[in-house]
Amino acid sequence: MDSETVTTGGIAADRLRSIIERVERLEEERKALGGDIRDIFSEAKSAGFDVKVIKQIIKLRKQEPAEVEEQETLLDIYRRALGM
Amino acid sequence: MDSETVTTGGIAADRLRSIIERVERLEEERKALGGDIRDIFSEAKSAGFDVKVIKQIIKLRKQEPAEVEEQETLLDIYRRALGM
Amino acid sequence: MDSETVTTGGIAADRLRSIIERVERLEEERKALGGDIRDIFSEAKSAGFDVKVIKQIIKLRKQEPAEVEEQETLLDIYRRALGM
Amino acid sequence: MDSETVTTGGIAADRLRSIIERVERLEEERKALGGDIRDIFSEAKSAGFDVKVIKQIIKLRKQEPAEVEEQETLLDIYRRALGM
Repeated sequence: MDSETVTTGGIAADRLRSIIERVERLEEERKALGGDIRDIFSEAKSAGFDVKVIKQIIKLRKQEPAEVEEQETLLDIYRRALGM
Repeated sequence: MDSETVTTGGIAADRLRSIIERVERLEEERKALGGDIRDIFSEAKSAGFDVKVIKQIIKLRKQEPAEVEEQETLLDIYRRALGM
Repeated sequence: MDSETVTTGGIAADRLRSIIERVERLEEERKALGGDIRDIFSEAKSAGFDVKVIKQIIKLRKQEPAEVEEQETLLDIYRRALGM
Repeated sequence: MDSETVTTGGIAADRLRSIIERVERLEEERKALGGDIRDIFSEAKSAGFDVKVIKQIIKLRKQEPAEVEEQETLLDIYRRALGM
Protein backbone atom coordinates (compact mmCIF):
# COMPACT_ATOMS: atom_id res chain seq x y z
CA MET A 1 0.00 0.00 0.00
CA ASP A 2 1.39 3.36 -1.07
CA SER A 3 1.91 5.81 1.80
CA GLU A 4 0.01 8.43 -0.27
CA THR A 5 -3.09 6.34 0.22
CA VAL A 6 -2.79 6.00 4.01
CA THR A 7 -5.54 8.23 5.33
CA THR A 8 -6.67 9.26 8.81
CA GLY A 9 -10.31 10.34 8.93
CA GLY A 10 -10.42 10.45 5.13
CA ILE A 11 -7.33 12.70 4.99
CA ALA A 12 -4.24 11.94 2.89
CA ALA A 13 -1.98 12.52 5.89
CA ASP A 14 1.29 12.28 3.95
CA ARG A 15 0.11 14.77 1.39
CA LEU A 16 -1.00 17.18 4.12
CA ARG A 17 2.29 16.77 5.97
CA SER A 18 4.27 17.39 2.78
CA ILE A 19 2.30 20.57 2.03
CA ILE A 20 2.80 21.92 5.54
CA GLU A 21 6.51 21.10 5.68
CA ARG A 22 7.19 22.70 2.29
CA VAL A 23 5.39 25.89 3.36
CA GLU A 24 7.32 25.95 6.64
CA ARG A 25 10.63 25.52 4.80
CA LEU A 26 9.84 28.39 2.40
CA GLU A 27 8.70 30.58 5.31
CA GLU A 28 12.02 29.87 7.05
CA GLU A 29 13.91 30.93 3.90
CA ARG A 30 11.78 34.04 3.61
CA LYS A 31 12.47 34.91 7.24
CA ALA A 32 16.22 34.40 6.66
CA LEU A 33 16.08 36.78 3.68
CA GLY A 34 14.38 39.36 5.90
CA GLY A 35 17.31 39.00 8.28
CA ASP A 36 19.80 39.40 5.42
CA ILE A 37 18.05 42.59 4.29
CA ARG A 38 18.15 43.98 7.83
CA ASP A 39 21.89 43.17 7.94
CA ILE A 40 22.53 45.18 4.77
CA PHE A 41 20.63 48.14 6.21
CA SER A 42 22.73 47.87 9.40
CA GLU A 43 25.85 47.87 7.24
CA ALA A 44 24.52 50.92 5.35
CA LYS A 45 23.87 52.74 8.62
CA SER A 46 27.38 51.93 9.89
CA ALA A 47 28.79 53.29 6.61
CA GLY A 48 27.00 56.59 7.31
CA PHE A 49 24.04 56.26 4.95
CA ASP A 50 20.49 57.26 5.90
CA VAL A 51 18.45 54.05 5.80
CA LYS A 52 15.07 55.81 5.40
CA VAL A 53 16.38 57.64 2.35
CA ILE A 54 17.80 54.40 0.87
CA LYS A 55 14.33 52.85 1.28
CA GLN A 56 12.82 55.80 -0.58
CA ILE A 57 15.37 55.30 -3.38
CA ILE A 58 14.43 51.61 -3.63
CA LYS A 59 10.73 52.56 -3.79
CA LEU A 60 11.41 55.13 -6.53
CA ARG A 61 13.42 52.61 -8.58
CA LYS A 62 10.37 50.30 -8.62
CA GLN A 63 8.29 53.00 -10.36
CA GLU A 64 8.40 54.22 -13.96
CA PRO A 65 10.61 57.39 -14.21
CA ALA A 66 7.78 59.25 -15.98
CA GLU A 67 5.37 58.36 -13.18
CA VAL A 68 7.89 59.48 -10.53
CA GLU A 69 8.33 62.80 -12.30
CA GLU A 70 4.60 63.39 -12.60
CA GLN A 71 4.02 62.64 -8.90
CA GLU A 72 6.87 64.95 -7.88
CA THR A 73 5.52 67.77 -10.03
CA LEU A 74 2.08 67.38 -8.47
CA LEU A 75 3.56 67.17 -4.96
CA ASP A 76 5.35 70.44 -5.60
CA ILE A 77 2.14 72.12 -6.86
CA TYR A 78 0.10 70.90 -3.88
CA ARG A 79 2.76 72.01 -1.39
CA ARG A 80 2.89 75.48 -2.86
CA ALA A 81 -0.92 75.67 -2.90
CA LEU A 82 -0.86 74.84 0.83
CA GLY A 83 2.02 77.22 1.56
CA MET A 84 4.24 74.37 2.74
CA MET B 1 -14.25 86.54 -5.01
CA ASP B 2 -15.18 83.30 -3.26
CA SER B 3 -12.23 81.69 -1.45
CA GLU B 4 -13.17 78.37 -3.18
CA THR B 5 -12.12 79.94 -6.45
CA VAL B 6 -8.67 81.15 -5.29
CA THR B 7 -6.25 78.83 -7.00
CA THR B 8 -2.46 78.43 -6.91
CA GLY B 9 -1.04 76.81 -10.01
CA GLY B 10 -4.52 75.84 -11.13
CA ILE B 11 -5.29 74.15 -7.79
CA ALA B 12 -8.34 74.88 -5.69
CA ALA B 13 -6.20 75.41 -2.60
CA ASP B 14 -9.09 75.75 -0.14
CA ARG B 15 -10.68 72.57 -1.40
CA LEU B 16 -7.37 70.72 -1.10
CA ARG B 17 -6.78 72.09 2.39
CA SER B 18 -10.30 71.09 3.48
CA ILE B 19 -9.81 67.54 2.17
CA ILE B 20 -6.49 67.15 3.96
CA GLU B 21 -7.69 68.59 7.25
CA ARG B 22 -10.78 66.39 7.29
CA VAL B 23 -8.67 63.28 6.68
CA GLU B 24 -6.23 64.32 9.41
CA ARG B 25 -9.09 64.87 11.87
CA LEU B 26 -10.58 61.43 11.13
CA GLU B 27 -7.14 59.82 11.40
CA GLU B 28 -6.71 61.46 14.81
CA GLU B 29 -10.07 60.03 15.93
CA ARG B 30 -9.12 56.63 14.61
CA LYS B 31 -5.82 56.76 16.48
CA ALA B 32 -7.66 57.75 19.68
CA LEU B 33 -9.99 54.75 19.28
CA GLY B 34 -6.92 52.52 18.92
CA GLY B 35 -5.70 53.92 22.25
CA ASP B 36 -9.11 53.30 23.85
CA ILE B 37 -9.05 49.67 22.65
CA ARG B 38 -5.56 49.20 24.08
CA ASP B 39 -6.80 50.64 27.40
CA ILE B 40 -9.61 48.08 27.57
CA PHE B 41 -7.15 45.26 26.91
CA SER B 42 -4.91 46.63 29.70
CA GLU B 43 -7.94 46.66 31.99
CA ALA B 44 -8.73 43.06 30.94
CA LYS B 45 -5.18 41.98 31.70
CA SER B 46 -5.28 43.67 35.12
CA ALA B 47 -8.54 41.83 35.82
CA GLY B 48 -6.74 38.54 35.16
CA PHE B 49 -8.05 37.78 31.67
CA ASP B 50 -5.85 36.45 28.87
CA VAL B 51 -5.82 39.14 26.18
CA LYS B 52 -4.79 36.79 23.34
CA VAL B 53 -7.74 34.53 24.12
CA ILE B 54 -10.13 37.52 24.27
CA LYS B 55 -8.89 38.51 20.79
CA GLN B 56 -9.62 34.98 19.57
CA ILE B 57 -13.15 35.24 21.02
CA ILE B 58 -13.71 38.56 19.21
CA LYS B 59 -12.50 36.98 15.96
CA LEU B 60 -14.82 33.97 16.41
CA ARG B 61 -17.82 36.25 17.10
CA LYS B 62 -17.25 37.93 13.72
CA GLN B 63 -17.73 34.57 11.92
CA GLU B 64 -20.91 32.58 11.32
CA PRO B 65 -21.31 29.86 14.04
CA ALA B 66 -21.72 27.18 11.34
CA GLU B 67 -18.47 28.29 9.70
CA VAL B 68 -16.64 28.27 13.05
CA GLU B 69 -17.87 24.76 13.75
CA GLU B 70 -16.82 23.49 10.32
CA GLN B 71 -13.33 24.99 10.66
CA GLU B 72 -12.91 23.50 14.13
CA THR B 73 -13.99 20.06 12.93
CA LEU B 74 -11.48 20.22 10.08
CA LEU B 75 -8.74 21.50 12.38
CA ASP B 76 -9.35 18.53 14.63
CA ILE B 77 -9.20 16.09 11.69
CA TYR B 78 -5.97 17.61 10.34
CA ARG B 79 -4.33 17.58 13.78
CA ARG B 80 -5.16 13.92 14.29
CA ALA B 81 -3.91 13.09 10.78
CA LEU B 82 -0.60 14.77 11.70
CA GLY B 83 -0.43 13.14 15.13
CA MET B 84 -0.56 16.54 16.88
CA MET C 1 -26.31 38.47 44.37
CA ASP C 2 -24.59 41.03 42.18
CA SER C 3 -24.37 40.01 38.51
CA GLU C 4 -20.64 40.97 38.63
CA THR C 5 -20.12 38.04 40.96
CA VAL C 6 -21.87 35.43 38.80
CA THR C 7 -19.06 33.31 37.48
CA THR C 8 -18.89 30.35 35.10
CA GLY C 9 -15.85 28.17 35.63
CA GLY C 10 -14.31 30.82 37.89
CA ILE C 11 -14.78 33.53 35.23
CA ALA C 12 -16.55 36.84 35.89
CA ALA C 13 -18.75 36.36 32.83
CA ASP C 14 -20.37 39.81 32.96
CA ARG C 15 -16.99 41.50 33.19
CA LEU C 16 -15.69 39.48 30.25
CA ARG C 17 -18.80 40.21 28.19
CA SER C 18 -18.53 43.94 28.96
CA ILE C 19 -14.86 44.01 27.88
CA ILE C 20 -15.60 42.21 24.61
CA GLU C 21 -18.64 44.32 23.75
CA ARG C 22 -16.79 47.57 24.41
CA VAL C 23 -13.90 46.49 22.18
CA GLU C 24 -16.34 45.43 19.45
CA ARG C 25 -18.12 48.79 19.65
CA LEU C 26 -14.85 50.73 19.35
CA GLU C 27 -13.72 48.51 16.46
CA GLU C 28 -17.01 49.27 14.69
CA GLU C 29 -16.42 52.99 15.16
CA ARG C 30 -12.86 52.64 13.90
CA LYS C 31 -14.08 50.75 10.85
CA ALA C 32 -16.68 53.48 10.18
CA LEU C 33 -13.93 56.13 10.34
CA GLY C 34 -11.94 54.13 7.80
CA GLY C 35 -14.98 54.27 5.52
CA ASP C 36 -15.33 58.04 6.07
CA ILE C 37 -11.67 58.54 5.13
CA ARG C 38 -12.14 56.46 1.97
CA ASP C 39 -15.18 58.62 1.10
CA ILE C 40 -13.11 61.80 1.37
CA PHE C 41 -10.44 60.32 -0.91
CA SER C 42 -13.17 59.38 -3.43
CA GLU C 43 -14.44 62.95 -3.26
CA ALA C 44 -10.86 64.21 -3.79
CA LYS C 45 -10.45 61.96 -6.82
CA SER C 46 -13.76 63.16 -8.30
CA ALA C 47 -12.58 66.74 -7.80
CA GLY C 48 -9.51 65.94 -9.92
CA PHE C 49 -6.89 65.58 -7.17
CA ASP C 50 -4.24 62.84 -7.14
CA VAL C 51 -4.96 60.72 -4.06
CA LYS C 52 -1.44 59.25 -3.81
CA VAL C 53 0.03 62.76 -3.76
CA ILE C 54 -2.49 63.88 -1.10
CA LYS C 55 -1.38 60.92 1.04
CA GLN C 56 2.24 62.01 0.62
CA ILE C 57 1.28 65.55 1.72
CA ILE C 58 -0.44 64.15 4.84
CA LYS C 59 2.66 62.08 5.62
CA LEU C 60 4.93 65.12 5.20
CA ARG C 61 2.71 67.23 7.48
CA LYS C 62 3.21 64.67 10.27
CA GLN C 63 7.01 65.23 10.18
CA GLU C 64 9.05 68.17 11.42
CA PRO C 65 9.78 70.60 8.53
CA ALA C 66 13.53 70.49 9.31
CA GLU C 67 13.48 66.69 9.14
CA VAL C 68 11.58 66.75 5.83
CA GLU C 69 14.13 69.17 4.38
CA GLU C 70 17.07 67.06 5.53
CA GLN C 71 15.57 63.88 4.05
CA GLU C 72 14.85 65.62 0.75
CA THR C 73 18.39 66.98 0.53
CA LEU C 74 19.81 63.51 1.14
CA LEU C 75 17.40 61.95 -1.36
CA ASP C 76 18.63 64.43 -3.95
CA ILE C 77 22.29 63.66 -3.21
CA TYR C 78 21.74 59.88 -3.37
CA ARG C 79 19.79 60.15 -6.62
CA ARG C 80 22.54 62.18 -8.25
CA ALA C 81 25.19 59.75 -6.98
CA LEU C 82 23.22 56.96 -8.65
CA GLY C 83 22.62 58.93 -11.84
CA MET C 84 18.86 58.84 -11.34
CA MET D 1 42.01 55.35 -7.99
CA ASP D 2 39.81 52.71 -6.40
CA SER D 3 36.17 52.85 -7.53
CA GLU D 4 35.18 52.71 -3.80
CA THR D 5 36.68 56.15 -3.43
CA VAL D 6 34.81 57.78 -6.32
CA THR D 7 32.28 60.01 -4.65
CA THR D 8 29.50 62.30 -5.89
CA GLY D 9 28.61 65.04 -3.43
CA GLY D 10 30.67 63.31 -0.73
CA ILE D 11 28.84 60.01 -1.31
CA ALA D 12 30.59 56.70 -1.97
CA ALA D 13 28.38 56.05 -5.01
CA ASP D 14 29.60 52.50 -5.64
CA ARG D 15 29.02 51.53 -2.06
CA LEU D 16 25.50 53.00 -2.15
CA ARG D 17 24.73 51.26 -5.45
CA SER D 18 25.99 47.94 -4.10
CA ILE D 19 23.82 48.25 -0.97
CA ILE D 20 20.71 49.07 -3.01
CA GLU D 21 21.26 46.32 -5.58
CA ARG D 22 21.84 43.68 -2.91
CA VAL D 23 18.63 44.69 -1.10
CA GLU D 24 16.69 44.64 -4.39
CA ARG D 25 18.02 41.16 -5.20
CA LEU D 26 17.03 39.81 -1.78
CA GLU D 27 13.61 41.45 -2.07
CA GLU D 28 13.14 39.74 -5.45
CA GLU D 29 14.02 36.39 -3.88
CA ARG D 30 11.65 37.05 -1.01
CA LYS D 31 8.87 37.92 -3.44
CA ALA D 32 9.55 34.71 -5.41
CA LEU D 33 9.28 32.68 -2.19
CA GLY D 34 5.94 34.35 -1.51
CA GLY D 35 4.83 33.17 -4.96
CA ASP D 36 6.07 29.63 -4.23
CA ILE D 37 4.10 29.57 -0.97
CA ARG D 38 0.96 30.72 -2.77
CA ASP D 39 1.50 27.95 -5.34
CA ILE D 40 1.62 25.31 -2.60
CA PHE D 41 -1.61 26.63 -1.11
CA SER D 42 -3.23 26.49 -4.57
CA GLU D 43 -2.05 22.90 -4.87
CA ALA D 44 -3.49 22.17 -1.40
CA LYS D 45 -6.84 23.69 -2.38
CA SER D 46 -6.93 21.65 -5.59
CA ALA D 47 -6.23 18.53 -3.52
CA GLY D 48 -9.33 19.31 -1.45
CA PHE D 49 -7.68 20.74 1.67
CA ASP D 50 -8.98 23.81 3.51
CA VAL D 51 -6.24 26.45 3.21
CA LYS D 52 -7.40 28.51 6.20
CA VAL D 53 -7.23 25.43 8.40
CA ILE D 54 -3.75 24.55 7.08
CA LYS D 55 -2.62 28.08 8.01
CA GLN D 56 -4.00 27.54 11.52
CA ILE D 57 -2.05 24.26 11.76
CA ILE D 58 1.16 26.04 10.72
CA LYS D 59 0.53 28.73 13.34
CA LEU D 60 -0.08 26.10 16.04
CA ARG D 61 3.13 24.23 15.11
CA LYS D 62 5.12 27.43 15.77
CA GLN D 63 3.90 27.51 19.39
CA GLU D 64 4.88 25.35 22.34
CA PRO D 65 2.37 22.46 22.78
CA ALA D 66 1.87 23.40 26.46
CA GLU D 67 1.08 26.97 25.47
CA VAL D 68 -1.38 25.81 22.79
CA GLU D 69 -3.14 23.61 25.31
CA GLU D 70 -3.39 26.39 27.89
CA GLN D 71 -4.83 28.82 25.33
CA GLU D 72 -7.36 26.26 24.15
CA THR D 73 -8.47 25.50 27.69
CA LEU D 74 -8.97 29.22 28.38
CA LEU D 75 -10.78 29.69 25.06
CA ASP D 76 -13.15 26.93 26.05
CA ILE D 77 -13.78 28.47 29.49
CA TYR D 78 -14.41 31.93 28.03
CA ARG D 79 -16.75 30.58 25.39
CA ARG D 80 -18.82 28.71 27.95
CA ALA D 81 -18.91 31.79 30.19
CA LEU D 82 -20.30 33.75 27.23
CA GLY D 83 -22.73 31.00 26.25
CA MET D 84 -21.06 30.57 22.85
